[in-house]
Amino acid sequence: MGCVQSFRELCDRPKNTNVRISLPAVCIVWQTAMIILFGIFIRYDDDSDPHWIDDRKKTNKSDMENEFYFRYPSFQDVHVMIFVGFGFLMTFLKRYSFGAVGFNFLIAAFGLQWALLMQGWFGSLGPDGKIKIGVESLINADFCVASCLIAYGAVLGKVSAVQLMVMTLFGITLFAVEEHIIIHIIHAKDAGGSMVIHTFGAYYGLSISWMLYRPNLNQSSRLQCSVYHSDVFAMIGTLFLWMFWPSFNSAITDHGDGQHRAAINTYLALASTVLTTVAMSSLFQKHGKLDMVHIQNSTLAGGVAVGTAAEFMLMPYGSLIVGFCCGIISTLGYIYLTPFIEKYLKIQDTCGIHNLHAMPGVIGGIVGAITAAAATESVYGVEGLKETFDFVGDMSPTKQGGYQAAALCVAICFGVGGGILVGCVLRLPIWGDPADDSCFDDEHYWELPQDEESTQPVLQYNNHMRNKDVIETNFNMQQI
Amino acid sequence: MGCVQSFRELCDRPKNTNVRISLPAVCIVWQTAMIILFGIFIRYDDDSDPHWIDDRKKTNKSDMENEFYFRYPSFQDVHVMIFVGFGFLMTFLKRYSFGAVGFNFLIAAFGLQWALLMQGWFGSLGPDGKIKIGVESLINADFCVASCLIAYGAVLGKVSAVQLMVMTLFGITLFAVEEHIIIHIIHAKDAGGSMVIHTFGAYYGLSISWMLYRPNLNQSSRLQCSVYHSDVFAMIGTLFLWMFWPSFNSAITDHGDGQHRAAINTYLALASTVLTTVAMSSLFQKHGKLDMVHIQNSTLAGGVAVGTAAEFMLMPYGSLIVGFCCGIISTLGYIYLTPFIEKYLKIQDTCGIHNLHAMPGVIGGIVGAITAAAATESVYGVEGLKETFDFVGDMSPTKQGGYQAAALCVAICFGVGGGILVGCVLRLPIWGDPADDSCFDDEHYWELPQDEESTQPVLQYNNHMRNKDVIETNFNMQQI
Amino acid sequence: MGCVQSFRELCDRPKNTNVRISLPAVCIVWQTAMIILFGIFIRYDDDSDPHWIDDRKKTNKSDMENEFYFRYPSFQDVHVMIFVGFGFLMTFLKRYSFGAVGFNFLIAAFGLQWALLMQGWFGSLGPDGKIKIGVESLINADFCVASCLIAYGAVLGKVSAVQLMVMTLFGITLFAVEEHIIIHIIHAKDAGGSMVIHTFGAYYGLSISWMLYRPNLNQSSRLQCSVYHSDVFAMIGTLFLWMFWPSFNSAITDHGDGQHRAAINTYLALASTVLTTVAMSSLFQKHGKLDMVHIQNSTLAGGVAVGTAAEFMLMPYGSLIVGFCCGIISTLGYIYLTPFIEKYLKIQDTCGIHNLHAMPGVIGGIVGAITAAAATESVYGVEGLKETFDFVGDMSPTKQGGYQAAALCVAICFGVGGGILVGCVLRLPIWGDPADDSCFDDEHYWELPQDEESTQPVLQYNNHMRNKDVIETNFNMQQI
Repeated sequence: MGCVQSFRELCDRPKNTNVRISLPAVCIVWQTAMIILFGIFIRYDDDSDPHWIDDRKKTNKSDMENEFYFRYPSFQDVHVMIFVGFGFLMTFLKRYSFGAVGFNFLIAAFGLQWALLMQGWFGSLGPDGKIKIGVESLINADFCVASCLIAYGAVLGKVSAVQLMVMTLFGITLFAVEEHIIIHIIHAKDAGGSMVIHTFGAYYGLSISWMLYRPNLNQSSRLQCSVYHSDVFAMIGTLFLWMFWPSFNSAITDHGDGQHRAAINTYLALASTVLTTVAMSSLFQKHGKLDMVHIQNSTLAGGVAVGTAAEFMLMPYGSLIVGFCCGIISTLGYIYLTPFIEKYLKIQDTCGIHNLHAMPGVIGGIVGAITAAAATESVYGVEGLKETFDFVGDMSPTKQGGYQAAALCVAICFGVGGGILVGCVLRLPIWGDPADDSCFDDEHYWELPQDEESTQPVLQYNNHMRNKDVIETNFNMQQI
Repeated sequence: MGCVQSFRELCDRPKNTNVRISLPAVCIVWQTAMIILFGIFIRYDDDSDPHWIDDRKKTNKSDMENEFYFRYPSFQDVHVMIFVGFGFLMTFLKRYSFGAVGFNFLIAAFGLQWALLMQGWFGSLGPDGKIKIGVESLINADFCVASCLIAYGAVLGKVSAVQLMVMTLFGITLFAVEEHIIIHIIHAKDAGGSMVIHTFGAYYGLSISWMLYRPNLNQSSRLQCSVYHSDVFAMIGTLFLWMFWPSFNSAITDHGDGQHRAAINTYLALASTVLTTVAMSSLFQKHGKLDMVHIQNSTLAGGVAVGTAAEFMLMPYGSLIVGFCCGIISTLGYIYLTPFIEKYLKIQDTCGIHNLHAMPGVIGGIVGAITAAAATESVYGVEGLKETFDFVGDMSPTKQGGYQAAALCVAICFGVGGGILVGCVLRLPIWGDPADDSCFDDEHYWELPQDEESTQPVLQYNNHMRNKDVIETNFNMQQI
Repeated sequence: MGCVQSFRELCDRPKNTNVRISLPAVCIVWQTAMIILFGIFIRYDDDSDPHWIDDRKKTNKSDMENEFYFRYPSFQDVHVMIFVGFGFLMTFLKRYSFGAVGFNFLIAAFGLQWALLMQGWFGSLGPDGKIKIGVESLINADFCVASCLIAYGAVLGKVSAVQLMVMTLFGITLFAVEEHIIIHIIHAKDAGGSMVIHTFGAYYGLSISWMLYRPNLNQSSRLQCSVYHSDVFAMIGTLFLWMFWPSFNSAITDHGDGQHRAAINTYLALASTVLTTVAMSSLFQKHGKLDMVHIQNSTLAGGVAVGTAAEFMLMPYGSLIVGFCCGIISTLGYIYLTPFIEKYLKIQDTCGIHNLHAMPGVIGGIVGAITAAAATESVYGVEGLKETFDFVGDMSPTKQGGYQAAALCVAICFGVGGGILVGCVLRLPIWGDPADDSCFDDEHYWELPQDEESTQPVLQYNNHMRNKDVIETNFNMQQI
């Protein structure tokens, strides 16, 4: 900790938010690198290559058997979640909507390219040294990006676009390694990514936020809140995440019953979460009023928590139970845990990703382990059991349960460890991050329109003051 | 009516909007009940069960034959209509956007669970006493919920979340019975639910609103209007409803040409409605200006009105005619009928559901009856006629037309009767509904952000006044 | 030019924005005409006709082989782009959001009906004189409408709804002829419409804007800018266009690998564009701040530019290169070219469609020609080459490349020529367009809600002034 402390002092220099050189440089250099690497490594897979017609005629298959038709509708739903869902969910801050939706856009667009490469190198590198991509690769790239967008939630408003690009580069890299270990080495199943995406992403972001702790963040507390319309914008994000979550959890599961079941389970878990979130939000506020923060976030916890088990025989009532618990835990997290974590653990978590992704993600991993361990041939059928878990050799449900639990640990370790390392890098005083009193303010990174009335409370405040002075002056004069 | 009158007096006690006990209690108890009932009754259907693979191998079917791939894209579109469409359509009020989108979210999430049970008990209870659910059940549950969200439109801003939960519980129950009678007993067809969903839902809501009539609602008239940005938010709802309506009307129709035709008919009817709505809106306003209320609502009337006949041979020009008439009728309804109904029938219809759902729903029922009665083998083909209408025994198109008309009556009766009964229950002074001068105000049910400038006109008004005082003071002094 | 000049003088009469007669008349008459023409010409195609079941049983096909299942998810994505994408992209102006989203809605709803007829007459008129429509017709109608919505971008805020209707009527007509020449006569390929839709639409709009040049438009410059929330609304449009562009470019390509490849190429090109847009936006603004105009628009240029070549073997790295270049060119266009074009060429381009559609569209046409000319059997396979390019007779890739280039010229000629002609018509002083100081203001065509605070800067400005007077008065008095 002494080392960390001295490092912190080293970094305490006046802030300069001008990224006119660094941001374009990073974007151009990295995009150029992407083009070169794509040129060397990335090719179309069999289902998106013009030779597919030969294969189709040979095997007398229907056009419909192209993977495109199995996955594309789900892919588009996931795509909406990544860009509109995550982007708009973070627009709740009164003066950081541009940064929320704009930087989300930037890092997702970069991240998905890097993810195609990283996931390809680890997962689908052919004997010819080429990575073959198709619609499933695009979904996996979007998934990979999701973990970095989750991490963005923890540091929203406190970092520069350049830092976010660095965070995404390392985040995607770590994700690909972690995913490879969990899916291909441990052979755990994680359809909706409770562990791989949510647990990893949340701890990655929280660790970075811990490394970037700002003791004087209260200097910008006037901006760390919402206005009426920014809360409505955030609901757009919430709803698109909520509605399309069944597609997220079913997008890469087995064709047929696998996708079908994952969608049903997620649909039910999310419905259940909404009711317990409302209940807790009302119960723990004075006068029973609802808090938009809970409605925007905790209602999604159920989707996170059924991610791993969505394709298993969780049963409809099981999904409801998972959603029930997560709505309660997540909302209580916002009320009690977030202030505690900020005060005592020095983790400033802007969007409360600990409540929305970390805790439900861990719960999801545990639920997945239990559900896998409890699998039986009578419930799944002989063929169904093999198909669902991809059992090879002497694998058994009990073993699978253990592997699932091991996978959860891997996700947490990668998140915390990776986050601390990347946090060190991000503390370097070269990235153009804002000063403590300039956080949560679009002004430093965006050309803002001139609209004094609706969104510049400070100016308006001065204006009020001026009126007050006038009144006082009058009173003084009247006394004369 | 004397009884109703005395009951009304009984209910006139000071209002208390604190729902800190009742709302959490209702949510937790009902969600717990859902878990128990789901545990007893609900199971996966054949297409979402792991045993599906055995069936598939036996019959040498493609994975693509799973019902999931026929219905899932439509399901997701319907899902967006329910949560974003209905939710955002109602955000037009200047200070009730949280309640619109938030309570819509809550009652939809509850309603779909209850709908799965109710529709299962009436429709698909197996010999083992279990309800098997799949993607079509999810669509039907969303449909069922739609009727309650329509009803919400009539009482928007005037009821508490607890009342809405009660209204939804009974609404779903009534819906399931009504639907069972119409679809399974009368054997009427109603793909897009003009009768089952829209007519029922609208009259249910209007009857409740009649029972909850507030003579002094003008006390909150300052809040019963929109602001510029709230109207733009509402357009999000309008457009997602408008765009996805072809999916709504085709979601549960026959595979193949049935779904195809329903989508085309709805697409055309909606396009036609937009033009006549604009024409009427411009023609009946001074200076030919358009009214956002009409554009937000009446443009959707065509989709409601082709609901029943969408899968029939309505013909493309027939769809255009239906849309043409509904755009005119619905817009004129907003201009002339809504004020009339409020003044003389004592029905306060916040969103004008009478113009968007009731009238077009009834028209849709009639169009359906006529189109069914006019069906011939030369138009449909021998097989096509059987397939489209599911004819068994000695059924003929003429008979079918009569049954369709009977179904419309059933929908209206259930709506009006059920609404009056439920309205009685909701008049009990225990539900935490707001006082007359507190309607259309999120403040009583939501923790609101502090944004004086943009959304608290009253404060601003005082501020103006203060300036005026200052000026007057100055004048006075100058006179001295 | 002398003729144009005198015509201009003829048109300089006082403006009257009252469209109470003309707008309803146009809507009702044209919609009635649509009904009649649909009655005469439009019928369901084989896949949406009840006789389809006979065909299916005869050929032992699966229900899944219905064209509906190949195209419907893409259709819905395109539909969202047309209404929410284009509509919300244009809401960025502080006081023209109603007009942006509302008039977009109106002309799209009219345009798609007229497009079904026009495209049917040119493309699919059967031997019985009937046009058969199915889901692919709906997609093509939406595509056709897109070109008119692009043109709307150039004249946004400066024309009346009646002018837009006229512009759409002629635009759709010209489009259908141009498309027929390019696709059916020249046999060029243009899956995503870089030439057919974007190049034509953009030059059509720019030419009209040139004909409607307003020398004194700076009188309404106070309204030709955004406010904070209107920029966030515009991001909704941007993101839905960006996310669904892969569906746009793949919607009508060949089943199987064709759709698959088009989606992948578009996905990659768009991702690449985002990074170079951000780089340029930051590099050319002082302090390296990002400009929302670029993020909202230039990020989409890559999707336009891969439109033609999306279904070819552009290769993943090729898509990235196209996106890379277009992000740079489009952003620089906004910074340097738009002011130049306005000042020297007298073209006032409200949304900068020259940078988003015209230039990228032309690039797309060129990329398509090169990619087609470079096609080889070794890359596509023998069957694949035929299938991808629909080669008949002695066609070769080199010839195809030449035809593609010819097609690009046709699109530009139709755009410029058609735009000038239609611009002449729109200069007639009978359409209710606004005066120069009334542009970009919803007030003249919409009933506006009373929300002084948040969106009426002029009033607020007076208010400020009043305060200032008060202060000055006080000062005067204090001097006394």
